[in-house]
Amino acid sequence: MGKTRLEAFSDGVIAIIITIMVLELKVPHGTDFESLTPLLPVFLSYVLSFVHIGIYWNNHHHMVHTVKQVTAGILWANLHLLFWLSLLPFATGWMGENHFAALPTALYGFVLLMAGLAYFILQKCIIASQGAGSILAKAIGRDIKGKFTVMLYITAMLSAIFLPWVAVFIYSFVALIWLVPDKRIEVLFAE
Amino acid sequence: MGKTRLEAFSDGVIAIIITIMVLELKVPHGTDFESLTPLLPVFLSYVLSFVHIGIYWNNHHHMVHTVKQVTAGILWANLHLLFWLSLLPFATGWMGENHFAALPTALYGFVLLMAGLAYFILQKCIIASQGAGSILAKAIGRDIKGKFTVMLYITAMLSAIFLPWVAVFIYSFVALIWLVPDKRIEVLFAE
Amino acid sequence: MGKTRLEAFSDGVIAIIITIMVLELKVPHGTDFESLTPLLPVFLSYVLSFVHIGIYWNNHHHMVHTVKQVTAGILWANLHLLFWLSLLPFATGWMGENHFAALPTALYGFVLLMAGLAYFILQKCIIASQGAGSILAKAIGRDIKGKFTVMLYITAMLSAIFLPWVAVFIYSFVALIWLVPDKRIEVLFAE
Amino acid sequence: MGKTRLEAFSDGVIAIIITIMVLELKVPHGTDFESLTPLLPVFLSYVLSFVHIGIYWNNHHHMVHTVKQVTAGILWANLHLLFWLSLLPFATGWMGENHFAALPTALYGFVLLMAGLAYFILQKCIIASQGAGSILAKAIGRDIKGKFTVMLYITAMLSAIFLPWVAVFIYSFVALIWLVPDKRIEVLFAE
Repeated sequence: MGKTRLEAFSDGVIAIIITIMVLELKVPHGTDFESLTPLLPVFLSYVLSFVHIGIYWNNHHHMVHTVKQVTAGILWANLHLLFWLSLLPFATGWMGENHFAALPTALYGFVLLMAGLAYFILQKCIIASQGAGSILAKAIGRDIKGKFTVMLYITAMLSAIFLPWVAVFIYSFVALIWLVPDKRIEVLFAE
Repeated sequence: MGKTRLEAFSDGVIAIIITIMVLELKVPHGTDFESLTPLLPVFLSYVLSFVHIGIYWNNHHHMVHTVKQVTAGILWANLHLLFWLSLLPFATGWMGENHFAALPTALYGFVLLMAGLAYFILQKCIIASQGAGSILAKAIGRDIKGKFTVMLYITAMLSAIFLPWVAVFIYSFVALIWLVPDKRIEVLFAE
Repeated sequence: MGKTRLEAFSDGVIAIIITIMVLELKVPHGTDFESLTPLLPVFLSYVLSFVHIGIYWNNHHHMVHTVKQVTAGILWANLHLLFWLSLLPFATGWMGENHFAALPTALYGFVLLMAGLAYFILQKCIIASQGAGSILAKAIGRDIKGKFTVMLYITAMLSAIFLPWVAVFIYSFVALIWLVPDKRIEVLFAE
Repeated sequence: MGKTRLEAFSDGVIAIIITIMVLELKVPHGTDFESLTPLLPVFLSYVLSFVHIGIYWNNHHHMVHTVKQVTAGILWANLHLLFWLSLLPFATGWMGENHFAALPTALYGFVLLMAGLAYFILQKCIIASQGAGSILAKAIGRDIKGKFTVMLYITAMLSAIFLPWVAVFIYSFVALIWLVPDKRIEVLFAE
């Protein structure tokens, strides 16, 4: 089984996830600025999730590029990742519509955390399929950035209970460190 | 007619089906754990359907891979399969929102059964197009796993009327036997 | 400009159209057979539209396959066709939810008619781009089936005002004559 | 990183955006002409946005075709463009449902303006990646049409506050000048 269709299917699912999130931005009835105000947190959540999904798509692309043989393990690890990403529109909508309330903001972090772990598992499956001297294993190294992200997600989830905005700040910070070109950040954290 | 566009179109439809199911997970108004509770059966239904669609996509991929020439029969048998899969979000939503009530749970099994039969018909069309010495025919053999699945679906539908949770258990069991790598299970049932 | 991306984009749009139509099948609140009854006409409309979109996808595929050079005309004629097809979910929903009332049933025919004309225009653009000795022109001949279909749509629209079910019968008949393998039907109508 | 997956992902997102816009055309409850009347502005907005997205897809296609190497900058500039395009269904729905009221019509122009700027940034990124002697840079020249469009959008946004229909006229005019084959219009504006 080649990777073309795995990529095509993942692209399709990610494209749909990134787009249906916007459906949570319900068209308001009024026509003044006040009718847009309650949509602001929904919009901010949308931006945050859009960037996260964009990062996943980008990294997924690079990672799958190194795949030689699509095993059953890779296939299901990939579907597992898509499953958690598919819950992001729900978590985004709940967090946004409730103006970053405690539990919705924590759940948002939980979905991100699970997606992060699913990504980690997919990574492990691909490395396992490539055997010793895996290109992906070399590129990732000790994966300090990945481990740091998981720690940040857990910190954010816990702080969401008391200080939801701190959690939102951490989610944004995670997006930022993944947006900035990879190499230098990795060095930064490795030191 | 090549198979590339058949694959691309099927991937597109399956990607959309697997993703729009999540729209049934309506964002609740409350922000506490209690407001999530009624969503639990909807979520479980979603997981069950996600796995089923994932299995179909996986198997569809392998099966279409053996196609040499896309005939009109294969094309319509494929659309027929996509039709029944497209009804799964509706059946999933009805079952989940009604907390696995009798009729919705039976209908869920009916849609799975029809999708299974549609898959079987597509399989027959592909084998017919490949003539004697078909690769697919050899790979499938007596298709004991397929026939066993149909029997399980019918059992589940009937039991759904009296014991819906037994039906849900059987649906999950079917997902499980298809998730586990093919070969060994086939041998298991063949014995 | 190659045709690969034209095909990919059309496949994407058609896959989404065929799938979002199912969203009109709203999950009912009851759990008995009676709660499904009002959905029956919606379901029948869905089946009818699914088959129509399937036919369009199939024929579109064959037609675009003959394209050598994608001109601006072909590109916009293609988007024009996708535009009318994109209105089919709306027309399907309106007809189905109103149990094949007069005006919705006539509008359904109007959307099909416009899609048919858009397909005809796309066909003309492709033939024009291929110049004398066009493969497509030869394959289509005098296009008696196409012209007959347009006549059937107009007849159906008119009869929908007084006898909506006759219109629905004609729409189903059109689907049938396009489902049956092309060549023989063409000969049948040509005689 | 090749451009194939960038194109595929963009095609997917654009195909979904162009199609989910039609979901704003909510199926009316009545079955007479009067029940369709309030949908007319929603429909007109849909047509306007459909054409705009069609133009973006078309131009995006041609522009990405000249890409040799997909840099991180191009990738994120592309996602940035898709982000603004993904807000068009919301802006279209708000403008249409409020019958071209002042603020919604101005916001519609704002989203178009931001998409236009995002397109401009993507263009700059691609030119930068191609270095001196860039094919794209030559094809675009001084980009008078692009700059003129930005000016038109700003004019439309301002006029939307007092005369929304003038804004709608300008949006339609912009669509028209991009629909008409490129070369000749460019010469027209250059003179």
